[in-house]
Amino acid sequence: MNWQAFGIGAAAITTAGFVPQILRGYKTKHLKDLSYAMNGLLCLGMGMWLIYGIARKDTVIIAANIAGIAMNITLIGMKYHYSRTSEKFEKNH
Amino acid sequence: MNWQAFGIGAAAITTAGFVPQILRGYKTKHLKDLSYAMNGLLCLGMGMWLIYGIARKDTVIIAANIAGIAMNITLIGMKYHYSRTSEKFEKNH
Repeated sequence: MNWQAFGIGAAAITTAGFVPQILRGYKTKHLKDLSYAMNGLLCLGMGMWLIYGIARKDTVIIAANIAGIAMNITLIGMKYHYSRTSEKFEKNH
Repeated sequence: MNWQAFGIGAAAITTAGFVPQILRGYKTKHLKDLSYAMNGLLCLGMGMWLIYGIARKDTVIIAANIAGIAMNITLIGMKYHYSRTSEKFEKNH
């Protein structure tokens, strides 16, 4: 068994997990139920993994965590944007 | 720098990231904006990490992924339960 390839597969699937959440939020324009604290902690934890990967010169860990951080920052930005938009909507209607 | 301890810290924070999401869902009884596909893919990816950890006899990877899978299954169950409850509510009101 090629365990390195298996680890790369595991990292890719875990990272890809955030894609359907971004797509769902983009479609519904609604991410109120998402917790900022979840996305924030995931960013912090993956930031540490990134430093770990750089220190260990491990390309898979570096790539997976850069992608994961980018997707979580995207979700935080989307949630913030949609929360402001729906506030305005509620005020005007 | 003790990189093993740093890695344990990174794993602990990433795993802990799901706790505030569970608490938020429990408080609002509403997880409609969460994507089943996100939690499902995260479970699958962490299941692969768990197998990887068992194969490599790496206790940190094993523990972090068991906890992560448990939390994502909890979120899937909560979302399903709350979606049924709110459906009933909408039918009756």
